Amino acid sequence: MTAKDYLDYIVNEIHRTIVATVDDECLPVTAAIDMMDSDENGLYFLTAKGKGFYDRLKKREFLALTAMKGEDTMSSVAVSIRGKVRELGYDKIPELFEKNPYMRKIYPTEESMHALTVFQIYEGSGEWFDLSKKPIERVSFTFGGAEKKAEGYFITDACIGCGSCAAVCPQNCIMTDSIPYVIEQEHCLHCGNCMTKCPVGAVERR
Amino acid sequence: MTAKDYLDYIVNEIHRTIVATVDDECLPVTAAIDMMDSDENGLYFLTAKGKGFYDRLKKREFLALTAMKGEDTMSSVAVSIRGKVRELGYDKIPELFEKNPYMRKIYPTEESMHALTVFQIYEGSGEWFDLSKKPIERVSFTFGGAEKKAEGYFITDACIGCGSCAAVCPQNCIMTDSIPYVIEQEHCLHCGNCMTKCPVGAVERR
Repeated sequence: MTAKDYLDYIVNEIHRTIVATVDDECLPVTAAIDMMDSDENGLYFLTAKGKGFYDRLKKREFLALTAMKGEDTMSSVAVSIRGKVRELGYDKIPELFEKNPYMRKIYPTEESMHALTVFQIYEGSGEWFDLSKKPIERVSFTFGGAEKKAEGYFITDACIGCGSCAAVCPQNCIMTDSIPYVIEQEHCLHCGNCMTKCPVGAVERR
Repeated sequence: MTAKDYLDYIVNEIHRTIVATVDDECLPVTAAIDMMDSDENGLYFLTAKGKGFYDRLKKREFLALTAMKGEDTMSSVAVSIRGKVRELGYDKIPELFEKNPYMRKIYPTEESMHALTVFQIYEGSGEWFDLSKKPIERVSFTFGGAEKKAEGYFITDACIGCGSCAAVCPQNCIMTDSIPYVIEQEHCLHCGNCMTKCPVGAVERR
């Protein structure tokens, strides 16, 4: 799947996401916000200009979100995004209302719609996290030209091949065919057991 | 419903929530985290000590979360919490695994469980937001001794009873029987239309 596929998945398969902004005291605030459209330039959502959410978006121009599908934990898929946002204003509102007709039930009149404004998440990184697979599956992606960062646990050349890490890996995702061992990043839970158990400090978190 | 009822609802009826913490640059990070237990002292969840999430929790000792139920927007109920967290450590892990047996599939061995630690959200405020009702329903609550703050839009004594605000309220939740008018807080969307339209500046956001 391409980055655009993940963004489309959020809009079309999940739609209602939980987003996070940060208040003046640098503490997080969450809310349920629908992702109403996607294209090769990012994700689109709307909010009312009267909300504290609007002020927090304008202040830092950054948003994190997780979109989740699945009734229970072991069958859940979560797609998370972190990225830069910008306000596009009212112009795109009629288009978003047409694509999301249920919005008419919340803002029924033309006049009440004018409380709203559109934001775009135009550059960011994301992660697909699928707990329904065994071992779990994790895929990173970026969009809008954001730099790709490799996050997770990595085994360095200091590895002596003792097997301590592989023995405690809950996902059995450490390949021990050659030294240094290799962590299969796409199946790693990021629990850190391998780093804790390595007797020579060969596992690092990046 | 009491505050405890809302916490129980999160654990028993929703369980998998989206939580937000803040990174070193004061930008939000979201993730899916299960709320595994609740009592009169708060909510309980666990995480691996190797995760960045753990470091962010330890740094600010604060968490925001939204727990959502319902397939689509217009039938959704969301419960949001913001509050202080503290680490309880490993002791409560076996109890949480017993209450949440699926955790054994993710951390199958005793040894892998030792990557984990328990956190408690012990003091905070929350909001119940039900979009399935018409008009929408919103209820605030606090727990652990947190102070109750009245957030939203309020009409002051400057109100002249002109009707401008009521005419643009998408939820029809402004009572105009007497002056000053009164906003029914439990039905307010916080869109801010009333504040924008009031000709005498009688609506304030708190």
